[in-house]
Amino acid sequence: MTTLLDFFFDFSSPYGYFAAMRIDELAAKYGREVEWHPILLGVVFKATGAKPLPMVPIKGPYVLHDLERSARFHHIPFTFPAPFPLMTQIAARAMLVIRAEHGAKRATAFAKAVYQAYFIHGIDISALENVLRIVTDQGFHASGISDAVNTPQIKEQLKTEIEAAMRLGVFGAPFIIADGEPFWGFDRFDQLEALLQQNK
Amino acid sequence: MTTLLDFFFDFSSPYGYFAAMRIDELAAKYGREVEWHPILLGVVFKATGAKPLPMVPIKGPYVLHDLERSARFHHIPFTFPAPFPLMTQIAARAMLVIRAEHGAKRATAFAKAVYQAYFIHGIDISALENVLRIVTDQGFHASGISDAVNTPQIKEQLKTEIEAAMRLGVFGAPFIIADGEPFWGFDRFDQLEALLQQNK
Repeated sequence: MTTLLDFFFDFSSPYGYFAAMRIDELAAKYGREVEWHPILLGVVFKATGAKPLPMVPIKGPYVLHDLERSARFHHIPFTFPAPFPLMTQIAARAMLVIRAEHGAKRATAFAKAVYQAYFIHGIDISALENVLRIVTDQGFHASGISDAVNTPQIKEQLKTEIEAAMRLGVFGAPFIIADGEPFWGFDRFDQLEALLQQNK
Repeated sequence: MTTLLDFFFDFSSPYGYFAAMRIDELAAKYGREVEWHPILLGVVFKATGAKPLPMVPIKGPYVLHDLERSARFHHIPFTFPAPFPLMTQIAARAMLVIRAEHGAKRATAFAKAVYQAYFIHGIDISALENVLRIVTDQGFHASGISDAVNTPQIKEQLKTEIEAAMRLGVFGAPFIIADGEPFWGFDRFDQLEALLQQNK
């Protein structure tokens, strides 16, 4: 089988960052590729009534602790960023523009760079200028993307893609759909791997 | 080290059931024992604003699916019960009575039997008569426990133990505290095991 894995993430989700650092490698191990779908958890949470985890009473401090420990356990560099959470629509739209103009592979590389900027270097990825710096670092022209991220077309496209994700049952991030099977959370990578092994 | 692991659970939590089927075995592997603490998620959720997972929009159907798959993945017999969730204070209080009168080991055996009655055989463990049947099956006299579970003393004791758990940071179930380190969820057993290995 060569069916793509669908990977849904929000650039502000730390567990999404962990998944992003591992998903391509896991897929490749089983001869698979990954289609990366940026979503906005703010939009999704409106439907489920969820709050960003670290904002939940009592649970919040645990989650911060769990993130640090999970990063160490999985050997992923991580520094909890401030501000957190933040708006990620500019980064998400920039990724869609790059995908349309330069293909999925380079869009995925850009996405990883955005995640690392935020969760390793603490760069405020809600700011257009910071997103554009990553755009430039990835070898693209900032000016074209700077204009494109604010067009009604790209805004509409991101909205449409999020709605499509929700129709597929996506209610959080990271979320992976593999051969029709949904997996929510980086901590389901063991069960995802078992599926990929089984469907080899 | 021979420090006990503290294991907090609600008899209505399916992931708590999975943890209950594995925690003693995991602890024993590292020469540890487990202190079992029944709590009531209803009380805890009042503080955090959480809802039972299967009741959350969009997320609910996924959770049912994840439970079935997780049970298969970990080779734990499981049938999603109805009614779900249900009131578990009678079972929790019965466990405290058994612990006081017959010791922790037999209380733990009773707790496992309650979990299996609910999540394997679909028995309504909110009903006193069903809890008493398990009490009898475990070799205790039903009459003494039937009276004891409704005394103000035992109600107060359960309340006090839940408050103590919340002061330790317990906001959900299953929740394990090992050597001061908190772990929420059956899916953190890998990181819990790493700690037990490290502190051997």
